[in-house]
Amino acid sequence: MHTSRTVKRRVKKIGLPAGSLVYTGEKKRDGINMMLVDYDASHSEARILKQPEECLAYKLKPSMTWINVDGVHDPVLLEQLGECFGLHRLVTEDLMSIVQRPKCEDYGDYLFVVLKMLAYDERENKIVPEQVSLIIGQHFLLSFQEDVKGDVFHLVRDHLRRGKGKIRKMDTDYLAYALLDVLVDNYFTTLEKLGDRIDRLEEALMMQPDKALIERLYQLKRELLFFHKAVWPLREVISSLIRRESSLIQASTIPYLRDVYDHVVQAVDSVEIYREMLTTMLDLYLSSVSYRTNEIMKVLTIIATIFMPLTFLAGVYGMNFRYMPELEWEYGYLLIWLVMLGLGIIMLTYFKKKKWM
Amino acid sequence: MHTSRTVKRRVKKIGLPAGSLVYTGEKKRDGINMMLVDYDASHSEARILKQPEECLAYKLKPSMTWINVDGVHDPVLLEQLGECFGLHRLVTEDLMSIVQRPKCEDYGDYLFVVLKMLAYDERENKIVPEQVSLIIGQHFLLSFQEDVKGDVFHLVRDHLRRGKGKIRKMDTDYLAYALLDVLVDNYFTTLEKLGDRIDRLEEALMMQPDKALIERLYQLKRELLFFHKAVWPLREVISSLIRRESSLIQASTIPYLRDVYDHVVQAVDSVEIYREMLTTMLDLYLSSVSYRTNEIMKVLTIIATIFMPLTFLAGVYGMNFRYMPELEWEYGYLLIWLVMLGLGIIMLTYFKKKKWM
Amino acid sequence: MHTSRTVKRRVKKIGLPAGSLVYTGEKKRDGINMMLVDYDASHSEARILKQPEECLAYKLKPSMTWINVDGVHDPVLLEQLGECFGLHRLVTEDLMSIVQRPKCEDYGDYLFVVLKMLAYDERENKIVPEQVSLIIGQHFLLSFQEDVKGDVFHLVRDHLRRGKGKIRKMDTDYLAYALLDVLVDNYFTTLEKLGDRIDRLEEALMMQPDKALIERLYQLKRELLFFHKAVWPLREVISSLIRRESSLIQASTIPYLRDVYDHVVQAVDSVEIYREMLTTMLDLYLSSVSYRTNEIMKVLTIIATIFMPLTFLAGVYGMNFRYMPELEWEYGYLLIWLVMLGLGIIMLTYFKKKKWM
Amino acid sequence: MHTSRTVKRRVKKIGLPAGSLVYTGEKKRDGINMMLVDYDASHSEARILKQPEECLAYKLKPSMTWINVDGVHDPVLLEQLGECFGLHRLVTEDLMSIVQRPKCEDYGDYLFVVLKMLAYDERENKIVPEQVSLIIGQHFLLSFQEDVKGDVFHLVRDHLRRGKGKIRKMDTDYLAYALLDVLVDNYFTTLEKLGDRIDRLEEALMMQPDKALIERLYQLKRELLFFHKAVWPLREVISSLIRRESSLIQASTIPYLRDVYDHVVQAVDSVEIYREMLTTMLDLYLSSVSYRTNEIMKVLTIIATIFMPLTFLAGVYGMNFRYMPELEWEYGYLLIWLVMLGLGIIMLTYFKKKKWM
Amino acid sequence: MHTSRTVKRRVKKIGLPAGSLVYTGEKKRDGINMMLVDYDASHSEARILKQPEECLAYKLKPSMTWINVDGVHDPVLLEQLGECFGLHRLVTEDLMSIVQRPKCEDYGDYLFVVLKMLAYDERENKIVPEQVSLIIGQHFLLSFQEDVKGDVFHLVRDHLRRGKGKIRKMDTDYLAYALLDVLVDNYFTTLEKLGDRIDRLEEALMMQPDKALIERLYQLKRELLFFHKAVWPLREVISSLIRRESSLIQASTIPYLRDVYDHVVQAVDSVEIYREMLTTMLDLYLSSVSYRTNEIMKVLTIIATIFMPLTFLAGVYGMNFRYMPELEWEYGYLLIWLVMLGLGIIMLTYFKKKKWM
Repeated sequence: MHTSRTVKRRVKKIGLPAGSLVYTGEKKRDGINMMLVDYDASHSEARILKQPEECLAYKLKPSMTWINVDGVHDPVLLEQLGECFGLHRLVTEDLMSIVQRPKCEDYGDYLFVVLKMLAYDERENKIVPEQVSLIIGQHFLLSFQEDVKGDVFHLVRDHLRRGKGKIRKMDTDYLAYALLDVLVDNYFTTLEKLGDRIDRLEEALMMQPDKALIERLYQLKRELLFFHKAVWPLREVISSLIRRESSLIQASTIPYLRDVYDHVVQAVDSVEIYREMLTTMLDLYLSSVSYRTNEIMKVLTIIATIFMPLTFLAGVYGMNFRYMPELEWEYGYLLIWLVMLGLGIIMLTYFKKKKWM
Repeated sequence: MHTSRTVKRRVKKIGLPAGSLVYTGEKKRDGINMMLVDYDASHSEARILKQPEECLAYKLKPSMTWINVDGVHDPVLLEQLGECFGLHRLVTEDLMSIVQRPKCEDYGDYLFVVLKMLAYDERENKIVPEQVSLIIGQHFLLSFQEDVKGDVFHLVRDHLRRGKGKIRKMDTDYLAYALLDVLVDNYFTTLEKLGDRIDRLEEALMMQPDKALIERLYQLKRELLFFHKAVWPLREVISSLIRRESSLIQASTIPYLRDVYDHVVQAVDSVEIYREMLTTMLDLYLSSVSYRTNEIMKVLTIIATIFMPLTFLAGVYGMNFRYMPELEWEYGYLLIWLVMLGLGIIMLTYFKKKKWM
Repeated sequence: MHTSRTVKRRVKKIGLPAGSLVYTGEKKRDGINMMLVDYDASHSEARILKQPEECLAYKLKPSMTWINVDGVHDPVLLEQLGECFGLHRLVTEDLMSIVQRPKCEDYGDYLFVVLKMLAYDERENKIVPEQVSLIIGQHFLLSFQEDVKGDVFHLVRDHLRRGKGKIRKMDTDYLAYALLDVLVDNYFTTLEKLGDRIDRLEEALMMQPDKALIERLYQLKRELLFFHKAVWPLREVISSLIRRESSLIQASTIPYLRDVYDHVVQAVDSVEIYREMLTTMLDLYLSSVSYRTNEIMKVLTIIATIFMPLTFLAGVYGMNFRYMPELEWEYGYLLIWLVMLGLGIIMLTYFKKKKWM
Repeated sequence: MHTSRTVKRRVKKIGLPAGSLVYTGEKKRDGINMMLVDYDASHSEARILKQPEECLAYKLKPSMTWINVDGVHDPVLLEQLGECFGLHRLVTEDLMSIVQRPKCEDYGDYLFVVLKMLAYDERENKIVPEQVSLIIGQHFLLSFQEDVKGDVFHLVRDHLRRGKGKIRKMDTDYLAYALLDVLVDNYFTTLEKLGDRIDRLEEALMMQPDKALIERLYQLKRELLFFHKAVWPLREVISSLIRRESSLIQASTIPYLRDVYDHVVQAVDSVEIYREMLTTMLDLYLSSVSYRTNEIMKVLTIIATIFMPLTFLAGVYGMNFRYMPELEWEYGYLLIWLVMLGLGIIMLTYFKKKKWM
Repeated sequence: MHTSRTVKRRVKKIGLPAGSLVYTGEKKRDGINMMLVDYDASHSEARILKQPEECLAYKLKPSMTWINVDGVHDPVLLEQLGECFGLHRLVTEDLMSIVQRPKCEDYGDYLFVVLKMLAYDERENKIVPEQVSLIIGQHFLLSFQEDVKGDVFHLVRDHLRRGKGKIRKMDTDYLAYALLDVLVDNYFTTLEKLGDRIDRLEEALMMQPDKALIERLYQLKRELLFFHKAVWPLREVISSLIRRESSLIQASTIPYLRDVYDHVVQAVDSVEIYREMLTTMLDLYLSSVSYRTNEIMKVLTIIATIFMPLTFLAGVYGMNFRYMPELEWEYGYLLIWLVMLGLGIIMLTYFKKKKWM
């Protein structure tokens, strides 16, 4: 369960002084991958870093420098990198603590942005969150991903290499926009899969209510609740960037950020619509079960109301009293059949009138 | 499903650099229709444009120029048009991406307004959304509709041609108001049809609860949810125009925009009332099914409670024990009938007292 | 249904240019009634106007002029009146369009206030809305009511004639207050009647849940929903008057407006309490039906559980096997009665222990 | 019902000009009690006033003057008092109209504060509201209570007489705080009693769901709804005093008012918790009734499923066909018993497996 | 119950003048523990205080002084301590009154912060609240805990003693941050335990709905409601510290407080997710019970519908009429068996078609 996991990871750090570098993830991943891209309008150079110190040379150059770090479980390396770029100790701590809520903090020289990537695991039918942090500085940008595998930024790197779009002509705030855009686009891929599951569930519920469907509905509700809580604060994050409280965000980037903002709002809207639909589907299910119970009760009542009096009558003439005049009548048997038939027809007419049939 | 569709269209654009012109609709429509109207207080001229460049001549003239484009699936044409009027590349991109949320963006030289037209397809009983975008500039206005067929602006064009009202005497911000007004009026046509369906559903539910009604109710709820999400942001859009953050909106137009604003608020109010009514109707249905189940149970219980003891008694005197003195009594049979009748009457009295009958 | 009606009336005006004078009510009423009252501290003169132009003479005088118009279905007359007092064309349009939401607009020379009168039709058990508009100008006030019959302002006219209170000593903003006060008082008369119906419904539900009650509850909910939507925006209307955004409202009138504001808030509060009570009453009804079903099920189960085994036993000894030793016993019949009695007592004890009886 | 009562009292005043002094309570109380306390740091004098004019002498003195009036049903007396202290006519009107919402109005020379005392009638199990008004002026304070009996301010009077605490050393704003504090403390006494009833109800519901409990729950919900509506606006009232919009409130009194504010917020919090608990208890009740119905159904179904087939079998061998070979078998009777026993055991095993037993 | 307890404690103080020192806890604890830590960058000294006056010497020194008081039930001692540090009498009163809502008050020379520690008692499965108050002054900090046992601040004391982190180099506002951090971390420990219980409950509900589970769910809901109400105001408390309304909070401490703020928001988020999950689980339970009732009804109806007609038939041929031709047929018995079998098969086919089996 997502929430429990967040809470549990947070508990790991209890008792340590502020600024303690502790990785709160579940287990150590294989290694850390540092990829540097140095670019300006005319060139673009990509290389893999072995040591954090290697980036110092690039930092001094007027060209843009983007360092992407895959894996945040190595305190030593992150500390060195943090020192290179003059990061506050709390920022370095937060990079490693993968239970942050999306937020945007202005440290003067740089902006610290935390957000969540939400992939969708189709086998286990659940959302897999991954924390992504961005440090947006003057001519440099650091990005951190939890996991070594599954780099989502390769598209941006590709655009940089091939000089596609205007990305190479702009400052690192535009690069930050490009990365944010990729992450938010990702939400829609996940939303699409959730939407497909909801559609299938809806169809199934219309066909035949079933207990298993309700458990699926419950799980979907939980995933959407989690999605909502992870994306909702992002509105405020991007909106604070747009308000240009920091000089690191240039006026020309604002329209692009506004675009991302629109997408986030749309993602939140979609989640809210999904959630309301699930709530209505639960009501639909409940009323459908009540209706079926009602239908079943009708059948039972009709059967019982018809056959109980008849069985009673048959019972009466099965009694062994010595003096039962009807038994001796020649047409007694025929008569009793007629009486029973008449009774049956009266009952059926009554049920027809009551619209039970 | 609307939401899935929005999400799916959004997914189409993933991985492209910002400003990529991609049509996100379902399939190419037949062609694009560009209609120019040039007017001032004294004249009005309408013509169909073949090439976007033709509008340049009109743009320079002091008279008002309105270009309406039906169909947004041709990137080349939109790009040319965008360049003619100096539009930001993101705006041209948004024109083609028909999954925008209603919004109003101020680009200094022009305002970019996106909103939704919500037609109602009576055969399929669902809302068909169409994106409409307006570019409000100095003496020019561009309007974009998704679909070639079903132009809703013919009324405004008619007023322009015939010089009805004060539309020809005013600037393009008044024209923008006139177009907004047409679109918002459209909401009420759709609301009227939804309202009629709700009325019919209400009547049907009062008559005879039925499972099919609940599915109709569920579909109506979803349509209203969609309507609400599409119209709600329009409040903010028009309200930002009224606040006159842009010099393109003149003081004399404000009362008219305020009028449209009132209509939007009223549309939102109506949707909210409809939604609350549907929720209450679902409760009504549920309580009505419970009540019916209760009624059916009463009948079953009354029948069972009366005939089970009687059948038992008849069964007792159908036993074949050798020594059963009652069987030999002369009036045994009469007596047992009296006992059974008495028992039945006692039961019925009990049920009367309990108000089950 | 109120909402449908509002939507339908709005639809009537689609396609007309702004400022078109169209009456959106259901049918033409009998005639229009114009009543002028001219007053100052020392005198008060009332007369019925035949032509709108007659008011021009009064307008120029320094004394206060109040013109009340009953009936808004005559575009010619309203247009003339509007021109006399220099009203914006949109205002004249809104006067006739009786589907306005309560609002307050400042046109500089005058304030335009729209609100709703909510009478209660006791025969049809529903709220009958009527639109009332006020134009508050320098030394003049125009008031418009939909209906010719049932003038609610006679009390104010009476106070003016008899010089009761301070009304004649004050400007027209105080007169506006007096009219608002009458209208808001009216809400409480309607609320009282709704409250009485809720009380009766509550009592009935406590006595005996019944399906008809639920339909009454549903109708009450809808009326309250409508009431709420009509009164809620009035808070903002009066609050904007109190903030004295217009110089037409004098400081000495503010405490009086504050008083009306308190009443509106109290009316809204009452409606909200009523609505919550109805929601709780629905829950009460549902739980009461469940409880009754439960009770009925207990009776059925007790009867079935006692008599089914007994009937089975009787059936066993009604079998016609040749060799059934028990049948030959001398006390067989007595014995079987004892067994059956014992079984019945055991069952009853079991139900007692389970607290089913 | 509280709300109906409020609405009904409001209706009493309809049609009267502003400033009409009308007592809106249910019936005249016995008499009016005016108690004056004049005090400063060194002395304290208490006397009962016969005439409002008697207070004029005290008003001029620099010492503090507190006049408490029990009973607000005498317009003449209140008018005289209002004139002595220069009260606005609307204030005097509001003093008598005991349906005010809690509010705080600044009339420059004095503050007018209205709030509700909420006693709890343990015999009738409902909240009895009483309106308390305070006029806080320069060196004087007037307090008004609805009822002559049951003065809650005796504690404050006692502190004044005995010079306990710092109350005699401070201005009348501190006295106002002391009175507010007494009233808010009163809320907790009422809350305690409501809390006790909720606790008892909770216990009873856990033991044995019962229909009567639901009616108690419903009544509690209504009382809490009323309490909430009466206390909620008090937050704003006291908060506006704290913001020191009036010079009558001195800086040294602010911490004390902040203290009262905290208590009010806490009272509101408690009411909200109580209300949520009642909502959850209703859900608990409903699910508990469903569960019981389910349990009862299981018993019924088990009994019916076991005995219906058996009774059928017994019925078969009670038939009177001439050629029924089984009846002639020597061990036929034994065999049928074995078959029936086997059938019963199979059924029971099936129910065990389904976890119905 | 928490709320009742809060209300009851508040009631204890009714009738006392402001500033009365009354301990509102349940009973006197064993004794009071005063622990002083005096520290600066170079040294750290800890000692147990016997008398409050002992702290005066430390107060004058430029080094930082932290006094932690365990136990707040001794008015004399708290009064002396309050006088040493010049505390407002209301603050001293609030220290003893352990029913405060979390709040932050600025008294100029010092800040007064109240918050709640929420431990989790695993045996009784409930949250045990404890009030913690902080007085943040120039170079001194006082902290107060309700209980002598279970000091949570030993970690901070340990860091101070060993000079770990930057705590000794900073002012007392950083110390306050460290203490807040410990307390908020504590929330996550409690949340973790609540989360575990929710997980177990969820699993149990999926396996087998049971009435006892619903009571557990109800208790969990109440605990979370309490948790929410206790933590929610803390957001505002810390946020007001961050806004630096007081000069006692230094700029360098802000990032740390922002960190605590993030944690509080995350705790609130987690509680809200937990609460929504419980609500959905209740719905799940209810729909699951309905579904089961439906299943049981099906079995009952199938059995009754099959065997009632058959038993009736058997009853018919058990009648003792003299003239019943079928009884005499040679293959009558065989025939009736075939008829009954056929009837049974028809019924089963019908149920199969209706998907009841």
